[in-house]
Amino acid sequence: MKSERISISQTCDMLKKADYIWILAHNSPDGDTIGSAYSLAYALMSLNKQVKVVCSDEISNKYSYMTDCKFQEFEPEFIVAVDVADTKLLGKATEKYLDKIDLCIDHHPSNTGYTKYLLLEEQAAATCQIMLKVIEQLGVEVSSKIADCLYTGIATDTGCFKYPSTSAETHESAAKLIRAGANTSEINRVMFDTVTVAKLAVQKDALDSIEYTFDGKCALMVISRDSVEKYNASDDEIDGLSGLPRQILGVEVGVTLKERKERDGYKVSMRSTEYVDASKICQVLGGGGHKRAAGCVIEGSLEQVKQKINKALEPYLN
Amino acid sequence: MKSERISISQTCDMLKKADYIWILAHNSPDGDTIGSAYSLAYALMSLNKQVKVVCSDEISNKYSYMTDCKFQEFEPEFIVAVDVADTKLLGKATEKYLDKIDLCIDHHPSNTGYTKYLLLEEQAAATCQIMLKVIEQLGVEVSSKIADCLYTGIATDTGCFKYPSTSAETHESAAKLIRAGANTSEINRVMFDTVTVAKLAVQKDALDSIEYTFDGKCALMVISRDSVEKYNASDDEIDGLSGLPRQILGVEVGVTLKERKERDGYKVSMRSTEYVDASKICQVLGGGGHKRAAGCVIEGSLEQVKQKINKALEPYLN
Repeated sequence: MKSERISISQTCDMLKKADYIWILAHNSPDGDTIGSAYSLAYALMSLNKQVKVVCSDEISNKYSYMTDCKFQEFEPEFIVAVDVADTKLLGKATEKYLDKIDLCIDHHPSNTGYTKYLLLEEQAAATCQIMLKVIEQLGVEVSSKIADCLYTGIATDTGCFKYPSTSAETHESAAKLIRAGANTSEINRVMFDTVTVAKLAVQKDALDSIEYTFDGKCALMVISRDSVEKYNASDDEIDGLSGLPRQILGVEVGVTLKERKERDGYKVSMRSTEYVDASKICQVLGGGGHKRAAGCVIEGSLEQVKQKINKALEPYLN
Repeated sequence: MKSERISISQTCDMLKKADYIWILAHNSPDGDTIGSAYSLAYALMSLNKQVKVVCSDEISNKYSYMTDCKFQEFEPEFIVAVDVADTKLLGKATEKYLDKIDLCIDHHPSNTGYTKYLLLEEQAAATCQIMLKVIEQLGVEVSSKIADCLYTGIATDTGCFKYPSTSAETHESAAKLIRAGANTSEINRVMFDTVTVAKLAVQKDALDSIEYTFDGKCALMVISRDSVEKYNASDDEIDGLSGLPRQILGVEVGVTLKERKERDGYKVSMRSTEYVDASKICQVLGGGGHKRAAGCVIEGSLEQVKQKINKALEPYLN
């Protein structure tokens, strides 16, 4: 099935007509899916709709300032998924409804078109950036609560306005949300200025492991299971570390090896700065991805994995 | 001497009348002083003025995309300091002119009023945020080069829009600069996504030193001279680390001890999250500062320094 692409005003018309609405957020919920789901929920509630946000996974405590409201149980008349590119990202809670989702609001170019209607803006830095326009066109005033939700999604999906996806419109949206009362100081502190003890400990071990090859053009870092288990670090805590080797001045290819739970190999994350196409190298190694960020899985011992990576890098860095 | 405060349009009138203009940037030049100096220089050059940016210290290579132009030598008819709060921040190159500076454009509330005229906006997140308005009112089109300079100042002075000083106007300025062609992806990568080998090595040693006290409400980190000298790290590289202990989840007071060159004591940087007034504690220890960021110098061995700090913290964290 391919979705019918619709505009913001068509989206608003549909939402206005419905009275019992479910809003679906994706699994491993992040700031953008939660922010867009709850901002839409608050907007629709102010229009006297019955709404319920549904997410199969538990939402992290750090987002609780967005989610502190109670929903009633009811059967949906209209279902909208937000920031959900694929039904694979919806879990148990929505199983029964997978082929009945009316609308998706999303910014992922990879959206599979699994819903009847689709509001997709691939250029938007976050689904929340689109949602702000939806809520404005619904004629709902952006409350400070809604502003908190939308700002969270935009800020987290852009690494606090750092990623290349950040556009003039992204900043204009942030300006509007600050004027609407978003508590940006506190949100930024929690999202970007907080690190857990476990993450810091794993990071320390990982820093110890960094090796430079090809005259410093490649930096390779290892996150071992020993370290992860010793400090009981979560996947969420570890994932943020993968970007580190590439950040080192002079490094063209940054590689992070994350040892698999089974200890039979490594998940490889490869980032590049300027001229190396990481996806080509990872393809050779059985994976794929984008030019600047790609990945693969390699089985074997640490030494074997390193050798395979070095061999694959040689034509590009020598 | 106390400066006469003037408006943006008065500032523009003065700049338009002058033909031979020096623009002074402060010592240890950062993105905001360089960005505001060079953006103003390019704007005035487009109005056929003779200009020269003067900075006593060398400008780091990473800012070279702003500074790649040649100035002629000439004696100034009009001198404007940008982002310079105090004459103490001007060095040798301007010694002869310290009491002849006509104008200062600045955002520091601590500006000492050492110039004849002063355009001061304490609420602005960066001097570049003010400079954008000056350049617009001068009637100069914001070129992509000027946009690069102004964006750099705004982004670096706000930690990429993360600090509480970031306002709606800050984001609106960024949006304008992106529309004017600022190369934000590359600037953000160089400024916020790059770390040196030396910094990373010192950081690793510093992470090894972290101690938690008062049930994890205090985290204390040490940057030793041994480590700094071993990796030949610059002050610039070390300074960025001081914020780390406070970022740890659950930590109310983060303390960084930087051993002095003479190895006779430590420079103490203290940050707090919510309820402890760091300036009060540092006052007790002979220093001062703000509620959330303060400092002092304590002489003695590492153990002696730690004991003094713990004693000073006790009434607040126990």
